[in-house]
Amino acid sequence: MAIDRLFKIFVPKDTTFFPLFEEDAQNLVAISSLFKQMINLEDPNLRVPFFSKIKDAEHVGDDITHKIFEKLNKTFITPFDREDIHTLTSTIDDVADFINKASQRIKLYKPKRFTPEMLKITQIISDACAEIHKAIGELRNLKNPEKINESCIQINSFENQADDLYHFAISELFDKEKDPVELIKLKEILETLEKATDKAEDVADVLRTIIIKAA
Amino acid sequence: MAIDRLFKIFVPKDTTFFPLFEEDAQNLVAISSLFKQMINLEDPNLRVPFFSKIKDAEHVGDDITHKIFEKLNKTFITPFDREDIHTLTSTIDDVADFINKASQRIKLYKPKRFTPEMLKITQIISDACAEIHKAIGELRNLKNPEKINESCIQINSFENQADDLYHFAISELFDKEKDPVELIKLKEILETLEKATDKAEDVADVLRTIIIKAA
Amino acid sequence: MAIDRLFKIFVPKDTTFFPLFEEDAQNLVAISSLFKQMINLEDPNLRVPFFSKIKDAEHVGDDITHKIFEKLNKTFITPFDREDIHTLTSTIDDVADFINKASQRIKLYKPKRFTPEMLKITQIISDACAEIHKAIGELRNLKNPEKINESCIQINSFENQADDLYHFAISELFDKEKDPVELIKLKEILETLEKATDKAEDVADVLRTIIIKAA
Repeated sequence: MAIDRLFKIFVPKDTTFFPLFEEDAQNLVAISSLFKQMINLEDPNLRVPFFSKIKDAEHVGDDITHKIFEKLNKTFITPFDREDIHTLTSTIDDVADFINKASQRIKLYKPKRFTPEMLKITQIISDACAEIHKAIGELRNLKNPEKINESCIQINSFENQADDLYHFAISELFDKEKDPVELIKLKEILETLEKATDKAEDVADVLRTIIIKAA
Repeated sequence: MAIDRLFKIFVPKDTTFFPLFEEDAQNLVAISSLFKQMINLEDPNLRVPFFSKIKDAEHVGDDITHKIFEKLNKTFITPFDREDIHTLTSTIDDVADFINKASQRIKLYKPKRFTPEMLKITQIISDACAEIHKAIGELRNLKNPEKINESCIQINSFENQADDLYHFAISELFDKEKDPVELIKLKEILETLEKATDKAEDVADVLRTIIIKAA
Repeated sequence: MAIDRLFKIFVPKDTTFFPLFEEDAQNLVAISSLFKQMINLEDPNLRVPFFSKIKDAEHVGDDITHKIFEKLNKTFITPFDREDIHTLTSTIDDVADFINKASQRIKLYKPKRFTPEMLKITQIISDACAEIHKAIGELRNLKNPEKINESCIQINSFENQADDLYHFAISELFDKEKDPVELIKLKEILETLEKATDKAEDVADVLRTIIIKAA
């Protein structure tokens, strides 16, 4: 580790990671946008094509993840610590995974209704993905980390809002939903959405680690 | 890695991690104690203030976790391997998270009853957290690892007991609980409690790794 | 890291990891075989002895995992990157854990029936474990990675098949199973089986990383 740090002073860093990070974040924005369109459709039949579109976009994300990992294994000098590149890529992948998982659950469970909190948390996920995209775009310029930091604060605030909505929705379900199968469906879809916002917060955490180390 | 090990012979190790570890373990004991008080209250209304107290204590734990991670990123020579400090801190955080999650589920689900095994597993969690606290207090003195080892053996035994109780309780629920919504509630609270004891075992695992490496 | 790579040229690598990897993979094949025998028995009473046999085999796997981790902590030069040995061992352990978890759920939940997809996914898990065993046997010879690569492709294809079966089974359950408690039981057993195939794919991912780095 010590030796790596000495090297870093003299050897130019490989900067070609950035286009891959940006592509990954852009794809995440696309996934969250497809999900938002799908969940806001009134007619369940119109939702059907979105399930496979979201799944396909999630596979595109997997491919980008693999490209970054392969590059990491072959690159000697990285723009920031290897473990942070690994965590950043994995956590972005996790957000995409949970959005796709929520989509698959809606497809398979065919719930009779959505709760209002589901639509609100979906909007929050979409906003959090936009902030991730914005922050990733600033990673090239670590000397000026203020914008990344602002995005991280935003993402944390989104996670808190989603958490409150999730708790309220679960409490309502257990109070009012009398059909246990419908309760299971809605509860599990809500859980997956809430986990997507948790993972967005994990992205913010690793971005913060990256700017602290670069300070 | 090799070079790091050479360095370690000549450079004094930063020992200021220990007060943070101890604060973290102390806070974990506090969380488990609050949870035990809450779950043993007969009147559900009296439980209410505990849910936010436990959540607040879990946030205190998050802050200590972040302090340790920041310190880790800025410290050149650590008292033991960086990855083990990372895992130790994360797993303590995980125990706190699952206790808080169990508390939040009790708050949101409002189960009509607790099973006797829930109270017994809660006692085990509390005992495991006390052992973690004891072992962490011994980390300053790695030349005499016997006490840490004894705590690890205790924690493993606690995990086995909790596992047996959990299995018995789940089996009973599926045999006897006729209300499916009540079954879901109790099952998920039990699962979260059992995961807290799993995570305590993960703490014991990393403590054991630390004393093996120091041997 | 850089220095480690220089060292690797001059210092003979410790090859005694391989018997442990092979023992671990062999044990995984045994676990998957026990599970397959159990789930194919018509009479629930005949299943009982298998639950503890599977659990015992999973504990044997834990012991092998611990041996590999201890060896890793004490070994200076490893046959491939330490982190990959760690991930390989952990993911094999995860596959075993999920098979045991499925077994424990069948024991505790006592479902009235299995779905046809459960038996099919069980066969896939067993085939995936056989491929893992085959690939691990080829790790000694990284100059000829073609066979490992073929096993990885097979495991990925198994995971896709299991995923489709899982989705179909869950969709069927929510359409047709009218007893909510029976639905919970079957759904959770299916989820655990599907996770076992996910973890087998994670084993394939790390095997692929190992052969890419060795190329």
